[in-house]
Amino acid sequence: MQGKFIVVEGLEGAGKSSAIASLVSHLQAKSIATLTVREPGGTPLAEALRDLVKQNWQEKVSAETELLLMYASRVQLVENVIKPALRAGKWVIADRHDLSSRAYQGGGRELGDAKLQTLKKLVLGDFAPDLTLLLDLDPEIGLERARARGELDRIEQETLAFFERTRARYLEIAAQERSIEVINAEQPMGAVHQALINALESALFGARG
Amino acid sequence: MQGKFIVVEGLEGAGKSSAIASLVSHLQAKSIATLTVREPGGTPLAEALRDLVKQNWQEKVSAETELLLMYASRVQLVENVIKPALRAGKWVIADRHDLSSRAYQGGGRELGDAKLQTLKKLVLGDFAPDLTLLLDLDPEIGLERARARGELDRIEQETLAFFERTRARYLEIAAQERSIEVINAEQPMGAVHQALINALESALFGARG
Ligand SMILES: Nc1ncnc2c1ncn2[C@@H]1O[C@H](COP(=O)(O)OP(=O)(O)OP(=O)(O)O)[C@@H](O)[C@H]1O
Ligand SMILES: Nc1ncnc2c1ncn2[C@@H]1O[C@H](COP(=O)(O)OP(=O)(O)OP(=O)(O)O)[C@@H](O)[C@H]1O
Ligand SMILES: [Mg+2]
Ligand SMILES: [Mg+2]
Repeated sequence: MQGKFIVVEGLEGAGKSSAIASLVSHLQAKSIATLTVREPGGTPLAEALRDLVKQNWQEKVSAETELLLMYASRVQLVENVIKPALRAGKWVIADRHDLSSRAYQGGGRELGDAKLQTLKKLVLGDFAPDLTLLLDLDPEIGLERARARGELDRIEQETLAFFERTRARYLEIAAQERSIEVINAEQPMGAVHQALINALESALFGARG
Repeated sequence: MQGKFIVVEGLEGAGKSSAIASLVSHLQAKSIATLTVREPGGTPLAEALRDLVKQNWQEKVSAETELLLMYASRVQLVENVIKPALRAGKWVIADRHDLSSRAYQGGGRELGDAKLQTLKKLVLGDFAPDLTLLLDLDPEIGLERARARGELDRIEQETLAFFERTRARYLEIAAQERSIEVINAEQPMGAVHQALINALESALFGARG
């Protein structure tokens, strides 16, 4: 039987990494085999692209270039890791996926959602998550959490206005698509994790956790 | 005044590098300032992508990934090098450009020309060469010339059938687009270079060289 593909999304410091740990232990308690991945990265070529994307370059990195590199990394991960795992019956939990590009490059970099949808279709066809959990919070709160963790990379160094546009695009898309659940990530961690489990249970097990 | 953008295209060993040297000295004799570039590559990020594309990976490199990396490199080169040079009045002579992707990824990798045209429009808009000189030859002849030069990279190691599809796509597109001139690259080098100069003179100076 084919596994399920679950994506955790949100701004820097939204709590994606800890959310994933909590989802994985919930699924493992149900004896479901899981695989966790993160984007960009997850294969040797995709990890090399992650380095290029996060690096501070002397030259300007065009928004279109950033977009193309994100998708190049994504295609490698989907074809070489995610699809084979799903075919083997594993549930794949991803730290970011396509929605990150629609929000960051489409919203933050203002490339627009139409362009993003065209490119996605072109290189990934109809492949899509079964469920996306969007951890929503004020970007200032997230950046403060991320800053406390260490140095900021090229994208984390963006302006607050950039992250405001990214958040707004995340929410616009979530309002239109049934497979995206918005979780208030400004709550204490325990409440966030309970909300995640509830959303997962009701979306994929037809129950409340 | 805006410079002209001239592209030299063709299979491995077609003679692009020597063609460019000949075109540049012809233009310099006319006191035209030139800049030569090659793809993939030409900026620090684009050169890093060139390395990733040519490298032999343990994992399968998806045709879509290869396509995205070629365009990522191309966008950096166009935005940071080619457009500024053209604005400064220089003539830019490029060793490969968009037509290489349409032929290699669209034809050789069988992604199709419609996909290629959609992606090009998406990330480069209407930017296009003033003239493309396509050095056409039997791929076996070109590969023999390239092999004599040293080790073959990931793409040069492709099958003869791949290069036959690539050549066929090159010629199909050239038959449809007025700004592409086909040069028989199986001739002795002197004859090839004379044909190139003639094509350049008649396309961009309204004369025969
Ligand atoms: N609900 C919460 N309340 C307070 N702190 C939290 C909450 N969730 C996560 N944190 C803390 O915020 C920091 C960032 O969390 P985490 O690394 O999980 O976020 P992330 O979304 O994975 O960030 P990034 O996008 O940078 O990887 C961590 O130190 C984490 O312990
Ligand atoms: N018309 C020709 N007849 C015979 N040999 C040629 C001709 N043109 C080029 N060569 C030789 O073939 C080899 C390949 O030529 P060149 O490097 O110019 O091709 P290229 O198209 O730039 O190849 P690549 O795509 O691999 O960069 C060189 O050794 C060159 O001297
Ligand atoms: Mg994280
Ligand atoms: Mg060459």
